[in-house]
Amino acid sequence: MEKKIPYKIYLDEQEMPRQWYNVRADMKKKPQPLLNPGTLQPVTLEELSGIFCEELAKQELDDTTPYFDIPDEIRNFYKMYRPSPLVRAYCLEEKLQTPAHIYYKFEGNNTSGSHKLNSAIAQAYYAKKQGLKGVTTETGAGQWGTALSMACSYLDLDCQVYMVKCSYEQKPFRREVMRTYGAQVTSSPSMNTEVGRRINAEFPGTTGSLGCAISEAVEAATTQQGYRYVLGSVLAQVLLHQSVIGLEAKAALDKYGVKADMIIGCAGGGSNLGGLISPFAGQMLRGEADYEIIAVEPASCPSLTRGTYAYDFCDTGKVCPLAKMYTLGSGFIPSANHAGGLRYHGMSSTVSELYDQGLVKARSVEQTEVFKAAQYFACVEGILPAPESSHAIKVAIDEAEKCKETGAAKNIVFGLTGTGYFDMVAYQRYNDGEMSDYIPTDEELAASFAQLPKVE
Amino acid sequence: MEKKIPYKIYLDEQEMPRQWYNVRADMKKKPQPLLNPGTLQPVTLEELSGIFCEELAKQELDDTTPYFDIPDEIRNFYKMYRPSPLVRAYCLEEKLQTPAHIYYKFEGNNTSGSHKLNSAIAQAYYAKKQGLKGVTTETGAGQWGTALSMACSYLDLDCQVYMVKCSYEQKPFRREVMRTYGAQVTSSPSMNTEVGRRINAEFPGTTGSLGCAISEAVEAATTQQGYRYVLGSVLAQVLLHQSVIGLEAKAALDKYGVKADMIIGCAGGGSNLGGLISPFAGQMLRGEADYEIIAVEPASCPSLTRGTYAYDFCDTGKVCPLAKMYTLGSGFIPSANHAGGLRYHGMSSTVSELYDQGLVKARSVEQTEVFKAAQYFACVEGILPAPESSHAIKVAIDEAEKCKETGAAKNIVFGLTGTGYFDMVAYQRYNDGEMSDYIPTDEELAASFAQLPKVE
Repeated sequence: MEKKIPYKIYLDEQEMPRQWYNVRADMKKKPQPLLNPGTLQPVTLEELSGIFCEELAKQELDDTTPYFDIPDEIRNFYKMYRPSPLVRAYCLEEKLQTPAHIYYKFEGNNTSGSHKLNSAIAQAYYAKKQGLKGVTTETGAGQWGTALSMACSYLDLDCQVYMVKCSYEQKPFRREVMRTYGAQVTSSPSMNTEVGRRINAEFPGTTGSLGCAISEAVEAATTQQGYRYVLGSVLAQVLLHQSVIGLEAKAALDKYGVKADMIIGCAGGGSNLGGLISPFAGQMLRGEADYEIIAVEPASCPSLTRGTYAYDFCDTGKVCPLAKMYTLGSGFIPSANHAGGLRYHGMSSTVSELYDQGLVKARSVEQTEVFKAAQYFACVEGILPAPESSHAIKVAIDEAEKCKETGAAKNIVFGLTGTGYFDMVAYQRYNDGEMSDYIPTDEELAASFAQLPKVE
Repeated sequence: MEKKIPYKIYLDEQEMPRQWYNVRADMKKKPQPLLNPGTLQPVTLEELSGIFCEELAKQELDDTTPYFDIPDEIRNFYKMYRPSPLVRAYCLEEKLQTPAHIYYKFEGNNTSGSHKLNSAIAQAYYAKKQGLKGVTTETGAGQWGTALSMACSYLDLDCQVYMVKCSYEQKPFRREVMRTYGAQVTSSPSMNTEVGRRINAEFPGTTGSLGCAISEAVEAATTQQGYRYVLGSVLAQVLLHQSVIGLEAKAALDKYGVKADMIIGCAGGGSNLGGLISPFAGQMLRGEADYEIIAVEPASCPSLTRGTYAYDFCDTGKVCPLAKMYTLGSGFIPSANHAGGLRYHGMSSTVSELYDQGLVKARSVEQTEVFKAAQYFACVEGILPAPESSHAIKVAIDEAEKCKETGAAKNIVFGLTGTGYFDMVAYQRYNDGEMSDYIPTDEELAASFAQLPKVE
């Protein structure tokens, strides 16, 4: 018999996870290793340590250790905004008149506005511990850059953010949050780096791209003494840190004797989804339980549902290691009408492999439907969601509607990764009826696949 | 002996207050009654019910009933974002190296971004219960309008917001949040109302004022069938609803055996401060305990520290009842360089009377110092505060610094009313070193006082 479940389940601080969980350790068939882009051989710890902090490089390459202790300093930082609530969506259930029980793990209750902070503090911590002066990174919409600037400010670490020029100019508020946290925010392409100067010369007036910003950030990290590059998604280390989401969600469900039937998360690079599903996927891999896990991606950037499983460059600049992943090709850029994040061309190797093994299913949704679900949710549950998170909301509502037809009282859990306070331009387009959808054609994708690197 | 206090104290849902507390009931000398602006006689329930919902008009006039039951529907709504956490600022204490214990009641964890939602849902609920079609209001920066639109959307009530034209144009994101919640947002002065048309004709190209927006909202409420006007601060009914802040804060402190020494809140119209201090002031009034209560206001709009205690108009349009309050004169407008809210010319009658009786002290602070404290707090505690809330932060830090000198381990509690995510223009000015201070001259204030209505 279930105990009476409150609107918001907050774990006590003592119940907060003390270890991150590395789902790769329980995978019989592991994700394929990262490859050195020059030699096409698996990258070594030494090679990776030139770009990433050593401890993070170790985490990246370790696919056998199931648990990593969370250092006390990181746990103390977590206590400022964690444990995050697992919310029972009573209001949404009532509005939908569904027999389903809907839960969401809400990661937006911190100033970065998303789950990104979970990995930002970990990466900043290991950089500090290694005695580094600072870190460099890129940011598109600005969530990751904000999270990193918060973590660096806390640890008194220099933070250099290369922000895609069009976002830098169109999202000045995100930029100002980062500056308030002491970060140096540079519009990319800039004149600070070799690659930036080259791109500016070649394409005068360019508004930049994430790929270019990555290349600038990597160059800045490798050419300044005491700096390393950090990345907010895709990597196995990031999924490891983000496992705190799933571990807390599972502990909260266990506390009330609730068994999830379905776990839904939005998927861009895969860090939120990977973190949320980790402990549940681990149970499935160990044969202890079964869940329906659904990754939701934008129809305009459908790496799982329409991508190909192959080695590809992680960045458009082709300076980072290659990863085997579901990908649309590193040159793929979502249509200009695409709002919000989830615009990465590939999917984390770990999530890709779980998908390939059938443990994770995938669904793609169009953005006008996503914003419709977002607005509905905002009015009913009182939280204005990020466009990214709203992909999961859309499918959770769809599934709750199905339960209404079948009468099944399923327990649906989804990840609400963040808030949409800095996405009001997109909401305005939706409010004004000016939002449109775009689905890439088969021809477009085929042309992009043709550019994939030849690895075998 | 104190129990180990977590970073965040969350009350259980069952511990959430079931009644609001009306501090006027414990005041021997009551706040002076509202006056009808035409007759200069105390307003009657009948007169007030033409503008406000009847239940709210009753609450406004009742200065003897100590407790009002919180209806279940409102409590259920509260459960979406309450109980709000009382945070032990361990990180701030450590950074300051102070022996003081610092706590803050954080009201920013909801999409309206502030405490305003506590009264918005109450006012919307009584409007719905009375069978009304909708409500009208004004908004300046947009916090109150956002809160009201969220409450109305939840209850399926029409919401018409008159937004001061300069904010409407300069803060399009706040406007879009309101629109996302289904509110009709009109730039004020508009052509919808008699008073709007008159002001537009008289002052072509005006960017509007709060006083004008109030007049438009009141006219819209009284000329449409099934509408009433609602207001987010100043009124006794609003302080009543906001008492939930103080009641929760006190319950959380009591739970851990902590006795506050000092309670600090920012003060504009007085609703947040009044709500936070209510139960503590009640204890003082009943002779049960003693606290140092400090209201913090901007030096550029110093109604308590430099105002006069007199009857004045609540609105610049002079259509609302008169209130006895500490006021700068209803024609007073803070200097154009003033950022954020806390720009109201007067102070809630209840807070004014408590101040006059010496139970509340007041301090004024300049805005560059306020933003400096805001940035410091953001980096250390991970929450980017609203400019309004940062007035309380500034004084809390000052007091913690004093404790460092004296060695006193005081328990300092302050109200963190909201987040600054929609105030990045002001933060940008601060980041760019372009923020300045302004203190009105004695001559300015004297000229404003000379315009006060003659009431005796």
